[in-house]
Amino acid sequence: MKGQFAGRMATMQRSFIREILKVAQDPNVISFAGGLPNPDYFPVAPLRAAADKVFAQKGINALQYAPTLGSLELRQFIADRYKTRCGLDVSVEDILITNGSQQGLELVAKILLDPGDHVILESPSYLGGIQACSLFQPHFVTVPLRDDGPDTAVLSQHAAHPEAKLYYALPNFQNPTGITYSAAKREEVAAILHEHQLFFIEDDPYRELRFMGEDLPPLTVYGRDRAFLLGSFSKIVAPGFRMGWIVAQPELMDKLIIAKQASDLHSNYVSQLIIQQYLQDNDLDAHIATIKAAYGRQRALMVAMIEELFPTDIRFTLPEGGMFLWITLPTGMSAMALFEAAAKRHVVFVPGDPFHIDGTGKNTLRLNFSNTDAAAIEVGMTRLAEVIKEQMMR
Amino acid sequence: MKGQFAGRMATMQRSFIREILKVAQDPNVISFAGGLPNPDYFPVAPLRAAADKVFAQKGINALQYAPTLGSLELRQFIADRYKTRCGLDVSVEDILITNGSQQGLELVAKILLDPGDHVILESPSYLGGIQACSLFQPHFVTVPLRDDGPDTAVLSQHAAHPEAKLYYALPNFQNPTGITYSAAKREEVAAILHEHQLFFIEDDPYRELRFMGEDLPPLTVYGRDRAFLLGSFSKIVAPGFRMGWIVAQPELMDKLIIAKQASDLHSNYVSQLIIQQYLQDNDLDAHIATIKAAYGRQRALMVAMIEELFPTDIRFTLPEGGMFLWITLPTGMSAMALFEAAAKRHVVFVPGDPFHIDGTGKNTLRLNFSNTDAAAIEVGMTRLAEVIKEQMMR
Repeated sequence: MKGQFAGRMATMQRSFIREILKVAQDPNVISFAGGLPNPDYFPVAPLRAAADKVFAQKGINALQYAPTLGSLELRQFIADRYKTRCGLDVSVEDILITNGSQQGLELVAKILLDPGDHVILESPSYLGGIQACSLFQPHFVTVPLRDDGPDTAVLSQHAAHPEAKLYYALPNFQNPTGITYSAAKREEVAAILHEHQLFFIEDDPYRELRFMGEDLPPLTVYGRDRAFLLGSFSKIVAPGFRMGWIVAQPELMDKLIIAKQASDLHSNYVSQLIIQQYLQDNDLDAHIATIKAAYGRQRALMVAMIEELFPTDIRFTLPEGGMFLWITLPTGMSAMALFEAAAKRHVVFVPGDPFHIDGTGKNTLRLNFSNTDAAAIEVGMTRLAEVIKEQMMR
Repeated sequence: MKGQFAGRMATMQRSFIREILKVAQDPNVISFAGGLPNPDYFPVAPLRAAADKVFAQKGINALQYAPTLGSLELRQFIADRYKTRCGLDVSVEDILITNGSQQGLELVAKILLDPGDHVILESPSYLGGIQACSLFQPHFVTVPLRDDGPDTAVLSQHAAHPEAKLYYALPNFQNPTGITYSAAKREEVAAILHEHQLFFIEDDPYRELRFMGEDLPPLTVYGRDRAFLLGSFSKIVAPGFRMGWIVAQPELMDKLIIAKQASDLHSNYVSQLIIQQYLQDNDLDAHIATIKAAYGRQRALMVAMIEELFPTDIRFTLPEGGMFLWITLPTGMSAMALFEAAAKRHVVFVPGDPFHIDGTGKNTLRLNFSNTDAAAIEVGMTRLAEVIKEQMMR
C-alpha cells in the first residue's frame, strides 16, 4: 500500500542480541553475552603481510568487479579442505563465496521460501537464521534439542507435513546451546530429510573449533541434492572481512547465483584475495589449534566454576567445541530478571528467550566462553553465581 | 511447495550482462560492453599504503564484528561531502554502508515491496535495479526518458495509481542511456513524488563523474521523507571493495537496519577502514579529476567517431558524465543481430533489449566509454560503423 513498508517488515525487529551488545561495550562490564571470537587470536601480522602482497602482486586485478561465485583459488582451498577433512567431494563450481554465513542464510531463505512454507527449527535456534527466514514469512515449527541432537520423532512428524520445506540446523556446537549431533543422530536426521524431500540448511560455522572428542561428518555427506552447507572464515580467521560460503549442487547453485547477483553482484574481492594469500602463506591448522586450546581452557574453567558455585538444580550443557554453553535455571525462574540483576553487578549474558520462537525458554540463558579470559571468567562467574542465588531466594 | 523453489525465483534469470561480459573477456575482443570503471585509474599504491596503516594502527579492532551502520568516520566523510557539494544536510545516523549500491537497491526493495506493488521505472532502466526489485514480485510500469529526463505527464499518471509505491531513477548520467535530468525536471519530478507520497530510490553512483556542464542537486534535497539516496565508491575508488551507502531518514533507516542485519550483519569492516584511511591521506577531488578528464576525452573521441562514421539516421545521446552513451538504430533494425555480427568482428556492446521490460528497445544499444582507450575506440568504432552499414544493407 502507498507509503507503507512491505508486509514482511511487520513482525521484524532489530536484533535483540546486537542491542544487548551495546550494554556489553562498557569496559567495566564482564560480558559472556557476545557471539564474538576472541580478538587476541586474530592473525593481524600475517593478514597485514597478505594484504600487502595482494596490493603489490595483484594490483588493479584485485580491485575490479569480479566473478559472482568468488575467487577460484579461495574456492579451491575450501573444496580441498572438505575433501581431506570431511570426505565430502565438492567441486569449486559448488561453492559460492558470501558475506559471512549470514548472507548464506539470507540467500537460501530467499530462493526457497514462500509465505506459509513450514520451516523446521531446532528449539532453541540461532537468531540470525530465524531472522533471515522471517523476512520471507514462513510458518515456523520447532524440534526440541536433546543432548545428542534433535528429537527425531518430532522431526519426522513435522517433516511429513505437506507444507514442510526446510530444516535449519547447526549440528556442531550449536549457537546457542553448544549441543552437537551424535553420529547416530546425523544418519537418522539425514534419512528423515531424504524421505520427505526437505531442503536443509546445515549451518556449520563452528565445525573447526572442536577441542574435545572426534570430528563427525557434515549431514550433507548423506545426501547433497537439497542441502546447503554453510561455512565461514569469521571464527577461524576474522569476522571483520564478512567472508563465508555456501556449498550446494548445481541446480541449487544456479538459483543462488541469481539471488547473489541481485543482492550485491559478488562479495568483496580484495578481501577474498587477502584471505586466500593468508591461507597460502600460513599454517591454518596450527592457528586453529591455538584458538581451540584457548577456548577449551576457557570452557573448562567456566564449567568448573559452574560445578563449584552454581546451585545444583541448575542444568548446563558440556560443549565439545564452539563458543557457547547453555544454562537451564529451575522452572519458573526468569533469565530476563536475572539479566537485569546481573547487569547491575556488571556481568552480562544473553537470556534464552529470543532463541525460542514459541515463548518457551524463559528460564534459559547463553554463556559465551570464547571472547573472555580466565580472570574475567573467575570474577564474572562468581558474581553470576551470587546473583543467581539471590534471585532464587526472592 | 515441497522440493520447489520460491515463487519469486520463477521469472528470475542470470544477469544477461554478466553473461555477455564472459565474451568480452577474450583479449582479442574490443569491448564497449562492460559497465566497468577504467582500472588504469585505480589508486593501487595509495590503497596499499592505507591498508598497511589500517593493519598496523587498528589491528584487531579492524577485524572484529562491527556496527551495522558502518564505520562512523567513513559515514562522517560521506555526510560532509553531501553537505559541501550538494547542500544536503545528512546526519551520520542517516547513512548505512552497503555492499556496493546493488545491496542498497536490494535492501530498499526488500523493506518496501509486496507482490503487485507498482514500481515505476525509467525506460530504459538499469538492469541491476530491475533485478533487485523483481525478487519481490512487483508490477513494473515505465516512463519514457527524454533528453532532459522522464516524460512527466506519464510519470504523473503512473504515480496517481493507488498501487503505485516506488519510483526508481538514476538522474545523473543514467545507466544505460547517459541521460541527465535537467534542473527543471528535477523539481518537477520531486513535486510529483511528493504529491503522490511515493517512495523514491535515487540511484546516484555516477554523480561525481561529471566532465561537462554543472552539478545539479540530488532530487532528494526537494523531499527526504520517502527518499533513498544511493551512492558508491565503486566508480571513484574501486569496485572490488563492494562499498556503497544509502542515505535515508530515521523511520526508513530503522527498517533498513533490520534488513541489513538479516542480510549480513554489517559490511566488510576492514575494507571500510582501508577506504577511510585512503580518503584521509589522499586528495579524492584530484583523483576524481584525473578520472573525469580521461572519461571526458574518451567520450569525446567516441562521439567524434560516431559523427564521422555512423549513418546519419542513427541517433545517440551526448552524456555530460558517467560511463555510457546510448545508440538508437533506425526502427526495425535489430541490435541483437548487430551484436552477433559485431562479435564476429571482435567488437562488442550491450544490446538495449534487456534494459526494457516491455519488449521495446530492440533497435537500441549501450556503449561504454570508460573501460577502454583511444586506440581501442578508434579501431572498435571503425569496425562497428562497418558492421552497422553492412547490417543496414541486408
